[in-house]
Parts: sequence; C-alpha cells; structure tokens
Amino acid sequence: MKLNKLISVAILATSVTAMSAHADDLMEKAKKAGLTPIPESTTELMKLIDDPQDPITDAKVELGKKLFFDPRLSRSGLISCNTCHNLAMGGDDGIPAAIGHGWVANPHHLNSPTVYNSVFYTAQFWDGRSPHLADQAQGPIQAVPEMAAPPNLVKERILSIPAYIEEFKNAYGNDVDITFPKIADTIATFEKTLVTPSRFDDYLNGDENALTDAEKKGLKTFMDKGCSSCHTGIAIGGTMQPFAQAAQYKFAHIGDFKGDERGFVKTPTLRNITETAPYFHNGAIWTLEEAIKEMGSTQLGIKISDQDAADIKTFLGALKGRKPTIIYPQLPEESDNTPRPTFD
Amino acid sequence: MKLNKLISVAILATSVTAMSAHADDLMEKAKKAGLTPIPESTTELMKLIDDPQDPITDAKVELGKKLFFDPRLSRSGLISCNTCHNLAMGGDDGIPAAIGHGWVANPHHLNSPTVYNSVFYTAQFWDGRSPHLADQAQGPIQAVPEMAAPPNLVKERILSIPAYIEEFKNAYGNDVDITFPKIADTIATFEKTLVTPSRFDDYLNGDENALTDAEKKGLKTFMDKGCSSCHTGIAIGGTMQPFAQAAQYKFAHIGDFKGDERGFVKTPTLRNITETAPYFHNGAIWTLEEAIKEMGSTQLGIKISDQDAADIKTFLGALKGRKPTIIYPQLPEESDNTPRPTFD
Repeated sequence: MKLNKLISVAILATSVTAMSAHADDLMEKAKKAGLTPIPESTTELMKLIDDPQDPITDAKVELGKKLFFDPRLSRSGLISCNTCHNLAMGGDDGIPAAIGHGWVANPHHLNSPTVYNSVFYTAQFWDGRSPHLADQAQGPIQAVPEMAAPPNLVKERILSIPAYIEEFKNAYGNDVDITFPKIADTIATFEKTLVTPSRFDDYLNGDENALTDAEKKGLKTFMDKGCSSCHTGIAIGGTMQPFAQAAQYKFAHIGDFKGDERGFVKTPTLRNITETAPYFHNGAIWTLEEAIKEMGSTQLGIKISDQDAADIKTFLGALKGRKPTIIYPQLPEESDNTPRPTFD
Repeated sequence: MKLNKLISVAILATSVTAMSAHADDLMEKAKKAGLTPIPESTTELMKLIDDPQDPITDAKVELGKKLFFDPRLSRSGLISCNTCHNLAMGGDDGIPAAIGHGWVANPHHLNSPTVYNSVFYTAQFWDGRSPHLADQAQGPIQAVPEMAAPPNLVKERILSIPAYIEEFKNAYGNDVDITFPKIADTIATFEKTLVTPSRFDDYLNGDENALTDAEKKGLKTFMDKGCSSCHTGIAIGGTMQPFAQAAQYKFAHIGDFKGDERGFVKTPTLRNITETAPYFHNGAIWTLEEAIKEMGSTQLGIKISDQDAADIKTFLGALKGRKPTIIYPQLPEESDNTPRPTFD
C-alpha cells in the first residue's frame, strides 16, 4: 500500500525535530501518567490508524477529501463536513453550538468537536454512541439540524456525478457498490489521516528540548493537579468519563444533554486546544484559563489558582500540532440528473 | 516584485500546451469577434490584472487567501467569501440564490457569480454598481442577508488576532492602517490571481489543435448565432448589456431585480460555465442547453435548435480552465478579546 502524502508530511515534520533524544524525570513521569506520543515511525502510526480490512490508500484519501469538502452531500448544497469541522480553524467551527440546515442550532446545544486526531478516540460523539469514524460520519450528514440529507439523497447525488463514480471505482475496484455507508467510510478514511504531531509528541518521543521550561512547568502542574487522569492516552482525551456531577455547574445548564446512559461524557482531546474555543460539550466557556479552572472544580473538586491555570495553559500551547498540507480540492461537475438542493 | 505562485502555475500550464502555433480561419474569425485569450506571458497577464499603486505580492496574496477563507469575517463566524464563491466548485455556490446570515436568501433572488476570472470584468455585481474587486469585496461582508458584519466588527475581529496584524505588517509595512477597505483590498488582491486559462485560450494563443473538431464547430455556431456579441473579450462576458426585454421571459419573474438605471445587466463570464449551474442572475435555469436556447430567444430574438444548442454546449466545455493550486490555509488563532459570533 502506498502511504498517503498527508501522513508522510506530518511524520517527516516529526522526525526532523526529534533529534537529541534522552529522557528526563518529567518525561518518564508523563509516560507513566499514560500520556502517549503520536509515533514518529509511519509504520507504528499506521498500526494505530489503519484497518487491514479497508486499508488507507491515496485514492481513498483523495476521494474522501473531496467528499469531506463537498457541500452537495447536504440537503441544501451549502453545508459540508468542513463547515463544522473546519480544517483551517483547528478542525472545528469556533462557535458554541453547531448550526446547520435552516440556521438551526444543535437541539442539545452541542459544540462541534475537532476532527483532527479524532481517529485516536475510543468513542465518537459527546455521548460516545458511535464506535468509530466511519459510523460517526453517517450521523451529521443525515441529522436534520446539520446537513439534513437522507441517505438516498446523498447516494443519488453521488451517483449522478460521473467523475465521482470513476473515483469510487479507482479507489475500491470496478465492482464497488456506492452505498451511503461506503461514502461515509471514504470520508472516515480521509479523516484518519488528520493527525497532528506536536512539540509535546517530540518531547515524549525523546527530545527533551522540544518543550520550553515554562511548558515543562505547566506539564508538571497538569499532572500534579490530576488533569491527566482523564486527558491521557494518545488523544490526550477521547475516552468516556464520569460527568454526572456537572449538573450543578453553570456550563451544564444549556440544553438537555445528559451524556451516555451512565452520565459519562467523552473527554475532548486537548490537542490543538488553543485553536478550538469555545470549550466543553456546550461551548459555554470561551477562555482556556476559565475552562481549566472550571474543570478543576467540576471534575477534580479542587480550586486551581490563576498561576496554575496560566502554567497549564502554557503547556497546552505545546499541543498545537503540525497540520497536514491539504490542497483544496476541485470537486467534480454535477450532471443534469443531479438532485437539486432544497432549503426548507 | 516576486510573482505569486498561483499565477505562475496557471501560466506554466498554459505555456506547456500552446506549442504548435499557426492560425486557421476560425481562429482569426474568433479574434475579430473580440474573443481574447488570457495571455501566455506572465508579464502580459500582469499588465491586465496588476495595479502599480498596490502591486500583487506573495505576502498580500497569502493574507488575502486567509481572509477569503475566514468565516470570522462574518457576523456569525460561519460564512466566508468562499461559502458563496466556492473555489472547489467553479467559484460559486451551485444554488439559485445566495443564502446568507440567518438562512435568508438574497432579497433580489440573485445568483452568486463565480469569482474565477472576475478580475477581467469591467464592472462588478449583476447591476454593475461596483467598479472593481476591491470595492465589490466590501459589499457582501456587510450585506445583512450575506455575511452581515458591520465594518467595525470586521476590523475589531482582525485587530484582535495578533497573527493577522503581523501578516498585514508583513504585506504592507509596519505603518499599515488595518481598515475595513484595506481588508477588502487584500481579499481582492487574492481574487485577482484566480485566473483559469483554458484550452480555448491555448487555441486563441495559436495552438489550433487545442480544440476538437466538435468544439470548433460549436465555436463557429456560437459566433454565427451572435452569442459573441455580448460574451466576448477576455472574460467572454463581464460587460454591461441591455436586458430590458427580459421582463417578458420566465426567468425574469423572480424577485425585483431590474439591472442598472438603464436596465442593463452584467453579462456573466462563460469561463468554467459547466461548473456553475444554475444559470442567469436569478439562477432560474439549471441546464446549459436550456440556458443557451433561452438566451437565443431573450437576447437575440432567434430560435436556437437542439443541435445548435448541443454544439454550442460542446464549445463551452472547452472554457473549463486550469485552476490555480490552492493550499487550504491554516487561519491564525483568535484571542480572548476577539468579538464573539452572534446569530440573530
């Protein structure tokens, strides 16, 4: 399998910066806390993100990218995956609650999570109801306040565009059955490549100079305060965690979102967090310091001081990742048979 | 001045294809009809698109690209220039009438024109009320049913984002006054580079093999029927033309658009026309054959046969241009002081 260029670029950037490799105590402590780097080696990364049953290929990634950016997957022809998961803006939309078809906000007032590094999540959606990206991608396309397109409409639009049919054949073989799930699978294959190694990964991979002293101090505070009990693993988040006590806090007072059947909520990734305000499942808090303090009181039952919050914020800045280079696609022309957009 | 890469790519592509250069009769006839190619030479192209008072530079183009793709220029933070002038889709939105802030359609039910090659227009907007792109760009950002952002809001957003300030200084010097018009100017500088040379340009530039025989037949019909009386010049359109008689035709029956004070309407470019359905100022007609016939009866007072319409459509396919390669930008992070999006 030919490795797709997006991943190659990201990995190359990692390798270049991770040179002087020897560990310090903080580094060992971080690893013991479960903080895990994005691997430097493409082979190791592929073990984490690739599916041997449906391997990542250049053809699938290129097609998936087009579908991700194509607003014709929505009922109106105006909303693409990228509208809410904008790859220019940290992978989200920068507004409190997603706004979709008809200018209607998400009924649970849920914030659009970043798509970058979402392949590393153990569950998708805030309530974790979806096991992986290929399943997740089917949701917002259909959801009435999001892209509002029934599966048959999506399929008919794609099947009416000759160049898309050719690209599916090219990606999956001439016998490909272009179904709605296959379309979502292809989008997910592109999304898997949206991995953003950061200076913190370089550090965990052995380059002790990859973080500044201030960032190291922040990392220590981050672990000492207990943040890494939930924000851990390769996603630095991405697992379901108890959130029941949140009901008493201000940022849970919007909408009727209750998490999963246990009251658990998916911990968001902290990767690229400086780019993805506002914060929390309901986008209720705009500044990182305030979000850090709120999490201290809500989740950890502690008061985080201004200084500690500032230190933690400094560390979080080191999680800003190197984004894959994305050539903006040229989408294939529709035909006279393409189902028309509707706006009601 | 360093030539920006977008133009270089487009020009290089032109030069490669325009090799065996000698004229045929049809080629001469087309030139006499006023059909003008995008020049092969970068120097010649720059004479057409550059402004010595505000020259195109890499720094301005890169900054202008970011602003063009940045939805934070809109009141809601959801709508960018690219929403309605999508560079992945022929430079427009593919819907009949632009839909903007609050999911409200353009009050005159006007169709979003393509931004590709718009630098070649003699006037901007369907009623030609704007003399050039830098002036045009100020309109939709402010218009309530489009991006709905007052100039002060746009300026405050930009001034609250430190990396944008740095980029403006880099583009214009440390003394730059980042005003709303300056922001629009910068977007326009990017838009000037959105030039798409096609096989028809290669033909007019001397490569008689650049068009197929069927396309040449269509070109002849296009001229013989009189289409090139309005669709001419380098934009193959782009000038104000009488449209008063349209009042009696079905596609003028939506909205209250009346053109300029003379009843003139801006002739759209035919470049990339196969990618920019639906057609006309009100987006009332979806297929190119129907649009061609309607123009015959409305503007030329003739009936264009099915065969002639098919031939003309074949020629129009040769106007699909080579698009500049656009790296999807990484937009700078906002700060805690950035004015928040609002949705009402």
